[in-house]
Amino acid sequence: MTAPNAFIKPQLMTAGPTPLPPRVQAVMAEPVLYHRAPAFDALFARVLERLPAVFGTENDVLVFASSGTGAMESAIANLARPGRPLLACAAGKFGERWIELGEAYGADVVRYEPGWGARLDPAEVATLLEANPEVDAVFATLSETSTGVVHDVQALGEVARDHGALLVVDAVSGLGATELRQDEWGIDVVVAGSQKALMAPPGLGFASVSRRALELAAQRPGGRYYFDWNRTANAQGAADPAAPFTPAVTLIRALDVSLEMIEEEGLDHVLARHALLARAARAGVHGMGLELFGDPDDRANVVTAVALPEGIDGTKVPKLLRERYNITANGGQGQLKGQILRIAHCGYFGGFDVLTTLAALELVLRELGADVELGSGVASAQQVFLDAGVALAAPGPA
Amino acid sequence: MTAPNAFIKPQLMTAGPTPLPPRVQAVMAEPVLYHRAPAFDALFARVLERLPAVFGTENDVLVFASSGTGAMESAIANLARPGRPLLACAAGKFGERWIELGEAYGADVVRYEPGWGARLDPAEVATLLEANPEVDAVFATLSETSTGVVHDVQALGEVARDHGALLVVDAVSGLGATELRQDEWGIDVVVAGSQKALMAPPGLGFASVSRRALELAAQRPGGRYYFDWNRTANAQGAADPAAPFTPAVTLIRALDVSLEMIEEEGLDHVLARHALLARAARAGVHGMGLELFGDPDDRANVVTAVALPEGIDGTKVPKLLRERYNITANGGQGQLKGQILRIAHCGYFGGFDVLTTLAALELVLRELGADVELGSGVASAQQVFLDAGVALAAPGPA
Repeated sequence: MTAPNAFIKPQLMTAGPTPLPPRVQAVMAEPVLYHRAPAFDALFARVLERLPAVFGTENDVLVFASSGTGAMESAIANLARPGRPLLACAAGKFGERWIELGEAYGADVVRYEPGWGARLDPAEVATLLEANPEVDAVFATLSETSTGVVHDVQALGEVARDHGALLVVDAVSGLGATELRQDEWGIDVVVAGSQKALMAPPGLGFASVSRRALELAAQRPGGRYYFDWNRTANAQGAADPAAPFTPAVTLIRALDVSLEMIEEEGLDHVLARHALLARAARAGVHGMGLELFGDPDDRANVVTAVALPEGIDGTKVPKLLRERYNITANGGQGQLKGQILRIAHCGYFGGFDVLTTLAALELVLRELGADVELGSGVASAQQVFLDAGVALAAPGPA
Repeated sequence: MTAPNAFIKPQLMTAGPTPLPPRVQAVMAEPVLYHRAPAFDALFARVLERLPAVFGTENDVLVFASSGTGAMESAIANLARPGRPLLACAAGKFGERWIELGEAYGADVVRYEPGWGARLDPAEVATLLEANPEVDAVFATLSETSTGVVHDVQALGEVARDHGALLVVDAVSGLGATELRQDEWGIDVVVAGSQKALMAPPGLGFASVSRRALELAAQRPGGRYYFDWNRTANAQGAADPAAPFTPAVTLIRALDVSLEMIEEEGLDHVLARHALLARAARAGVHGMGLELFGDPDDRANVVTAVALPEGIDGTKVPKLLRERYNITANGGQGQLKGQILRIAHCGYFGGFDVLTTLAALELVLRELGADVELGSGVASAQQVFLDAGVALAAPGPA
């Protein structure tokens, strides 16, 4: 007889799609709603009312049936013009998507690329804006999922404002996981997706667009329809808010439940939970004698990138996690393939999820011949939780 | 005591979103899948293998996380260019969307608008193509959901081909409900959505694009990214088919089940069932002394538009259906508001759904003071079913 399989439970430990709370899963099995009937009207109005708090904004948050990339494209389609300059900041795969989008639309893309894993430096952005005074929009990333780094978009917002430019932030993986105060920080546009810390399935894109950005978009008509901000803003802003095209009603229903869960836990608690999970993950990485990848700071609460030890085949780490331990986790993308493992703690994640991923990583690294002591990472993370105090009665996304 | 409420069961009788089969609902409550792991790879490959049969094509069917309008926009974004002429055929709200999309992209839109409810006349299209020899793409609708009319896209395809133009067909509501043989009929592009006869929730858009259309799109680069056909075709056509951006995994899972159900029933049986339901609906309308709206023929198997009798307030019909009888049905849109009721039989619909809608319509019309005999429409539809022979053992979407 071969060894019994102890690891029978599949576990989704990725930074998006993230695991769904059971309440969110369950509601999707209910009968579908017609999108122009009172039951959906009430649901949609409630979702539209709940969304702005997560963004820290008083804008109406525009909802698209699309992935997060669709929401990013909405920003380019509404603001970029052929031949006009824009500034794209890229320190990883998702930052580079701004460059690709800008170029696809024929914009004159000024690039700021400090390298994958770096943190965007507001002073460098200021220098580029001084050198390119015609740039009127800066595109950046809150949480760069490919590297784990969270950028200081508050500082970027100040720099952009000082130069009279709009700041557009891709918060697809960061929203609801790390602090973002759109209005207070003066960020004109924040785009996001449903499948990360918002704890809903993929298929909804969001754009929180300031009045100023809506006006600029209106001055640059044409070349878009589905992702036209003002069309969606007009439909959603009507007395009886509606989507301009058939919305993804099942996903909106799921989002309603997940936003309710965020309200119940309280956004501050949600963010504090993410920060604690991230601290435990970082401690666990150090505890097993490994290093973090790149330049994360204490904002990096979305995904923790572990630099895999030299001398092992890093591409085997996610493969063995899946094949031996039934854990689906993210390795490195693009130029980081085989170099990192990403520990996700973004959305419906708790302490034991982090301990599980660390335990599994220890097991896999041992199998690959790395010098890792079993339990070392787990113990360091446990200590973080103990030191933080375990609050049994604290609110959580139950 | 007020009268007891006999009509406690909510019933979705709309032409999209359409009701979901229980099997499709249930699968969405399962844990979400990561889109770059073997379990999703296998699911996605299976869906991509199942889709072409429904279109009658050997093309790879491109899948977008979007509504049907997004799939329509993909056709304009990939084929239209500012200042270039295209021909848009519009005999209802969804045909008019081609005009709006073309104009949003700055194309020189030649319009063929025979009026809402008319059937597109291939001879008129030929005349317009002769008068506008630079048109290289014609945009039309298979099933015009706003009027119930199904257009003869086979004949339109011949005319387009004779003039060297591509034909692009919006089959959002028609696909899987009324005959469409894309390759046999020489249709270059068919766009569709998940939430009609495909029996899945809204949020997936499809484009079945011929090699010739992909090549033309490649010759017209720029101004698109998310909806770029060649980007998606390359990702889906790879040895390990993938979506270029995070796919709506929950909806794709639902679609896998609904496509399986279509295979089990058999596409021919599916189409024959729609034809029978439509025949019964038309007989029911006549049986209660009413007329059909517009110019439907025996292809009109998706939705039956009833011309409401003079002298009643037609806007009250869908309202009373909902408030008294718990039935959500479509009234008229746009210029047809208050003039028609649309009886849907598109997707997961059976004989008793048609009888239910007819019975409810009789009740509501009586309440509004119209001269309608109770049971008259129901009886005429029953007779159609009896005459057709009830095949208890026949396959169905169980």
